[in-house]
Amino acid sequence: MTAAPQPQRGGRRPGESGTREAILAAARSAFAELGYDRATIRGIAAGAAVDPALVLHYFGCKDGLFGAALEIPVEPAEILARVRARAPDEMGPALVRAFLSAWEPAETRTPLLATLRSAMTNETAMTLVREYLERRIFGPITQALQADDAQLRATLIGSQFIGMAMMRYVACIQPLASASVDELVAAVGPTVQRYLTGDLGEGAGA
Amino acid sequence: MTAAPQPQRGGRRPGESGTREAILAAARSAFAELGYDRATIRGIAAGAAVDPALVLHYFGCKDGLFGAALEIPVEPAEILARVRARAPDEMGPALVRAFLSAWEPAETRTPLLATLRSAMTNETAMTLVREYLERRIFGPITQALQADDAQLRATLIGSQFIGMAMMRYVACIQPLASASVDELVAAVGPTVQRYLTGDLGEGAGA
Repeated sequence: MTAAPQPQRGGRRPGESGTREAILAAARSAFAELGYDRATIRGIAAGAAVDPALVLHYFGCKDGLFGAALEIPVEPAEILARVRARAPDEMGPALVRAFLSAWEPAETRTPLLATLRSAMTNETAMTLVREYLERRIFGPITQALQADDAQLRATLIGSQFIGMAMMRYVACIQPLASASVDELVAAVGPTVQRYLTGDLGEGAGA
Repeated sequence: MTAAPQPQRGGRRPGESGTREAILAAARSAFAELGYDRATIRGIAAGAAVDPALVLHYFGCKDGLFGAALEIPVEPAEILARVRARAPDEMGPALVRAFLSAWEPAETRTPLLATLRSAMTNETAMTLVREYLERRIFGPITQALQADDAQLRATLIGSQFIGMAMMRYVACIQPLASASVDELVAAVGPTVQRYLTGDLGEGAGA
């Protein structure tokens, strides 16, 4: 058995303020550029100027690091709380606006797109994203709705949002890609409102 | 200058019935498994048991082959014609049903998913998909609608459909992934109906 290569000690140490965030930032950047499969613990550690062992210390493994990197750059619970403070018939448009406010700034859009791309091409990444969505977004929406079909409603909302993100930020298909936030709130808000509180039984005869 | 490797002649020749389809089938399978970047003309030719030169003869280059492989496995013009035969207020649900009928069978879903995955991770593939969508789907819908905001309406419909495909077939998030076609027609049909013919100006005050 050969000795493991002696890791070089970086400028930061465990517990030092900001180290964890620096690792996460490097991880997001690596997952964004390379995708889940090609991003490495070693490369991410180098990007954060820390020892690879420190990355493993904080996050256990690449999966753990990706899961932590997903907790970005918006807090769904905060967004959902703000939306729930609205009148029931305003929640749909408010949710569209909140969704867009999370995606519009480049500094949040870039890591969100990285997550989406990784999930599309790697089953492990997809599993992590699926778990994240179910735990942090669809779960809370389902609980808030308290309807028999609340889970379906939550995932229908998810379908409209992920499709809007795909068309606007990934495929950049016009004119949806350059529509204003107000236009999209007006156009998509009632869709989300109906998925939240409307009748889902119409149209079945088609 | 070294001589190019002598291609081995396969069992099929130009013009032989089915050769072009065999190449396209092999290309779809390669793009599905490997993505656009890692799929090769050589590997696709091998999968179709033809000479690589024959692939280039038919399709010019990898981009040309991918473009041709995109013309699968449903004909948007036929689907749109069927939907346009419906009464105006039934078109939304009919379009949802037509979309799902294209995606539900594994033999059509597999190549459609391959296209989606390639587009997510390769800019050339995305360009091809974008062109295809604009030329074959959003363009005809826009023309049929003859409204000032017809282009936005067409792409809003696209956003709901691509999101539904992502949730149901890519991420497999429940209960949307296992909902019946009838349930989805009932739930999503009115969304598409509104994007086709409804008022898109509501909800702007949120």
